[in-house]
Amino acid sequence: MRMSNMLNLTMREVPAEAEIASHQLMLRAGLMRKMASGVYNYMPLGLKVLKNIEDIVREEMNKTGAQEFLASALLPAELWQESGRWYAYGPEMFRLKDRNNRDFCLGPTHEEVFTDIARQEIKSYRQLPLNLYQIQTKYRDERRPRFGVMRSREFIMKDAYSFDKDVAGLDVSYNKMHDAYVSIFNRCGLDVKCVEADSGAIGGSNSAEFMVKSEVGEDDVVFCTSCDYAANIEKAVTTAEKAEREELLETLKVETPDVKTIDDLVAFFHTNAKKFAKTLIYNADGKIVAVMVRGDRGVNETKVSNALGGVVELQMASVEQVEAATSAQVGFAGPIGLKVEELLVDNEVANMYNFIVGANKTGYHIINVNYKRDFEGTVGDFRNIEEGEKCPHCGESITISRGTEVGHIFKLGTKYSAPMGANFIDENGEPKALEMGCYGIGINRTMASIIEQHHDENGIVWPLSVAPYHVSIVVAVVKNDEQMKVAEDIYNKLRAMNIEVLLDDRDERAGVKFKDADLIGAPMRITVGKKISEGKVEFKLRNSSEVEVIGLDEVYNKISEEFKSNNIKL
Amino acid sequence: MRMSNMLNLTMREVPAEAEIASHQLMLRAGLMRKMASGVYNYMPLGLKVLKNIEDIVREEMNKTGAQEFLASALLPAELWQESGRWYAYGPEMFRLKDRNNRDFCLGPTHEEVFTDIARQEIKSYRQLPLNLYQIQTKYRDERRPRFGVMRSREFIMKDAYSFDKDVAGLDVSYNKMHDAYVSIFNRCGLDVKCVEADSGAIGGSNSAEFMVKSEVGEDDVVFCTSCDYAANIEKAVTTAEKAEREELLETLKVETPDVKTIDDLVAFFHTNAKKFAKTLIYNADGKIVAVMVRGDRGVNETKVSNALGGVVELQMASVEQVEAATSAQVGFAGPIGLKVEELLVDNEVANMYNFIVGANKTGYHIINVNYKRDFEGTVGDFRNIEEGEKCPHCGESITISRGTEVGHIFKLGTKYSAPMGANFIDENGEPKALEMGCYGIGINRTMASIIEQHHDENGIVWPLSVAPYHVSIVVAVVKNDEQMKVAEDIYNKLRAMNIEVLLDDRDERAGVKFKDADLIGAPMRITVGKKISEGKVEFKLRNSSEVEVIGLDEVYNKISEEFKSNNIKL
Repeated sequence: MRMSNMLNLTMREVPAEAEIASHQLMLRAGLMRKMASGVYNYMPLGLKVLKNIEDIVREEMNKTGAQEFLASALLPAELWQESGRWYAYGPEMFRLKDRNNRDFCLGPTHEEVFTDIARQEIKSYRQLPLNLYQIQTKYRDERRPRFGVMRSREFIMKDAYSFDKDVAGLDVSYNKMHDAYVSIFNRCGLDVKCVEADSGAIGGSNSAEFMVKSEVGEDDVVFCTSCDYAANIEKAVTTAEKAEREELLETLKVETPDVKTIDDLVAFFHTNAKKFAKTLIYNADGKIVAVMVRGDRGVNETKVSNALGGVVELQMASVEQVEAATSAQVGFAGPIGLKVEELLVDNEVANMYNFIVGANKTGYHIINVNYKRDFEGTVGDFRNIEEGEKCPHCGESITISRGTEVGHIFKLGTKYSAPMGANFIDENGEPKALEMGCYGIGINRTMASIIEQHHDENGIVWPLSVAPYHVSIVVAVVKNDEQMKVAEDIYNKLRAMNIEVLLDDRDERAGVKFKDADLIGAPMRITVGKKISEGKVEFKLRNSSEVEVIGLDEVYNKISEEFKSNNIKL
Repeated sequence: MRMSNMLNLTMREVPAEAEIASHQLMLRAGLMRKMASGVYNYMPLGLKVLKNIEDIVREEMNKTGAQEFLASALLPAELWQESGRWYAYGPEMFRLKDRNNRDFCLGPTHEEVFTDIARQEIKSYRQLPLNLYQIQTKYRDERRPRFGVMRSREFIMKDAYSFDKDVAGLDVSYNKMHDAYVSIFNRCGLDVKCVEADSGAIGGSNSAEFMVKSEVGEDDVVFCTSCDYAANIEKAVTTAEKAEREELLETLKVETPDVKTIDDLVAFFHTNAKKFAKTLIYNADGKIVAVMVRGDRGVNETKVSNALGGVVELQMASVEQVEAATSAQVGFAGPIGLKVEELLVDNEVANMYNFIVGANKTGYHIINVNYKRDFEGTVGDFRNIEEGEKCPHCGESITISRGTEVGHIFKLGTKYSAPMGANFIDENGEPKALEMGCYGIGINRTMASIIEQHHDENGIVWPLSVAPYHVSIVVAVVKNDEQMKVAEDIYNKLRAMNIEVLLDDRDERAGVKFKDADLIGAPMRITVGKKISEGKVEFKLRNSSEVEVIGLDEVYNKISEEFKSNNIKL
């Protein structure tokens, strides 16, 4: 592409709307523009990168034998009513009616659709295993769209659905997808980590996320400092710290005027937060429940939701609801005499001795409380793991980093196939529900994550595999006929080699062109300037500061070498 | 692809839901499945064809210098309110609200979006001309989705938008697109005709449609039998037949009991339909108007809508509305004393002498009526042209055929740029509105039209350029090791040549495999059977009944030749 013909969209200023590097650079380099909150238009440069990522995804998926489909985004409500998710999905699902008042949604994901395809088309075990995938636009009405395409409302996803005759087959399909994902992210130049994850609203038995470590990530990821354990914080299993064994003392109701927070309590009782148990009251899809964790711990709402059988909306209870449950003002909730539908007690609390809780009476706490003797509930893991705690695999300490999810693989089992009747006839002539897996990659988010990992203060530093242009040719002085002629010549020859080239033939100062070349981030730059009189041009890699002066005849070899060393076929 | 691994979706029966050949074959060959009325899922075979068509479109668009974008499908109402189309579009537009109750639509087309991009990014004449295109999913809530993807509610469209500094530039851009469209349809193996068209709801000054002649087409297309005039019937200009000059007679109100239709009148007055003028009453977006055409003619509602300044919904008036306008029962409307907001009079009626009209009194007509002397209105072309009438260009007679629109090119002029403020600074430093054009191709409909033109009683006969697979290899007896080995060998070699091959390695009777091969329609078939003992296989073109027995070493040359003769690079 000649820049004189291109709608060049580079900007010098950092746009005020963008907080993180990838978002800023996607706007500044002209990869995209905002259409509405969380909705973007892709400009030619951005679209080229998306297509490059899609091609890598497609190649790796095809290698596994997966077959590409394309389902509609406009989906009839009936399918979602059948699975129950029409009611469960909440406001994240865009819903609409057609001219005949029939309900539709814009697919946030496609489990129902592919289960429906499978139940119509798969009859026999002979057709299995099968993996169907698509690269398609998804819609999720996020509560807080942000960070550009990191969390957007319309986005492109590769979603795949595997169908197997048994669990062993599902394991094979799942592992194949795992390996394909590793290859895909490798080829995209992304440093990712596969971590254990919670299956969330999609459900199922086993899942893992591909996370990019990133300071601006929206997820907390737990890593073991010793073994290779890694998990999303929503999933990371805690080990209950055992309190030192004590003799059980008599409970005592103590007046604690104006003492409401854990800090107040610590000061009042001259002890530490580990001697307290917090009782937090939630509204779980309309049901009032309480969760107890040690005073210094945080509740893990995902674990709580799962323990309650998959709650859609878990919110802190309102003041009125807390007062109704405790018969007291907010700040004095405790397990004894609490009026809730369910009480969840974190493992650690069940292991404590003679601890302090709210008395369900305004201005009072109870001391010397002990689980089982004084109250009972559902005991389990309901809290977040914390930096320095024990790894559940090896017992060494863990660290927590921020990360962004770019891929997710799930074992669904028969979660959709059984209720939706997606059966096949097995070897013995018996009908059996298909064992399913589902596998997603966020294409746009992958693009943004690549930029997060590959940029410097001057702009994007594309990996060769996904670069919108492989080579930028900067002509120092366009009005110099010899420079233009040589540049055109290189441009045409490289294009004939299937290399994507951006020829900066604009009548601008060389400085402006270098700035744009750095911002746009083609991995290689050739500058045709004064030295052309000696038959020489400048060659520079975007990820190095070194400028080499090379002979014209070396250009093609130099560039070919770069492809070779990146393992990319021309 | 090995058919043993493929989710094969071929069907022997003609599905009841499908009326036309392309729809039947797309289901029978397994190209797609219905998700909801007018909404389809594309299966791997169908998707491959879509991608092939998209690639051809992309190549031809890129050749013109157009730049590929990708806009969102989810569009904020504000843009459409600005252009006025939010109110004008009617129920064909899918509308929805987000979680914050903001209005959105699913883009039925993208003029507003690209005008908005242009007004933000185009500052100067130096950036012009510019052509931006996308291949993207569109949504139109059709009143009657039918014929499979011929008229669907979710479909893929290539839409392009050109921006020029003046009308001469727009002409160049428009002609470039015209030529690109001719190449695209040629390469797709489609026989299309470019015809003059009405610009409809998109508006603008000049437009043409690319029509495929088809008995199942939804449009009537007018062709001259002598010159190259061709037009959509909505647009085709009529020539008013001049009635023989007569002396003007006195009008006379005549009692015509039980005489309501033109046939009744012809019988009652012992004359022919050319002596009558019909007065039809319409509700045009709430305004009551009347249209007069000769007794034997049909009203052209598009011409009427345009004459009224672009009516959105033109409906026949209700009985109550007719009675209010005529003060009579239905069947006696006439121009004299009629109470309507506007009276449109077809050219032909204005040229008639002493004709008969309704009297606006139940049971009466008026004879010897003459335009101007007895009533006046807006005279113009308000009727449909008919088979055998004069060509507006050369005066020879025209014929009418059914056709399907696969592409449409428009000169929009400043219809969007002026009201939306999409201006640039011209050579004299003055702001000027961009001259725009817009250009669409229905990708899915192109696929269906290709099938309409390329099939026989056994299935699809794909043109090589868009075929999902170029070659089908049928292994007669899979259990014969030699046959399988040779077939695998050919399969691998052809794939290494970048040829798409479907290897039918299923343990089925050869007859079943031939039937599927014909249905799926790969242009070439190689059968590996008994003759392999002599080193020979069968070669057959899908579009010929001839079966050639050729040596194994001839296979590659034979296939390469086929690509060469179709002008397709490997």
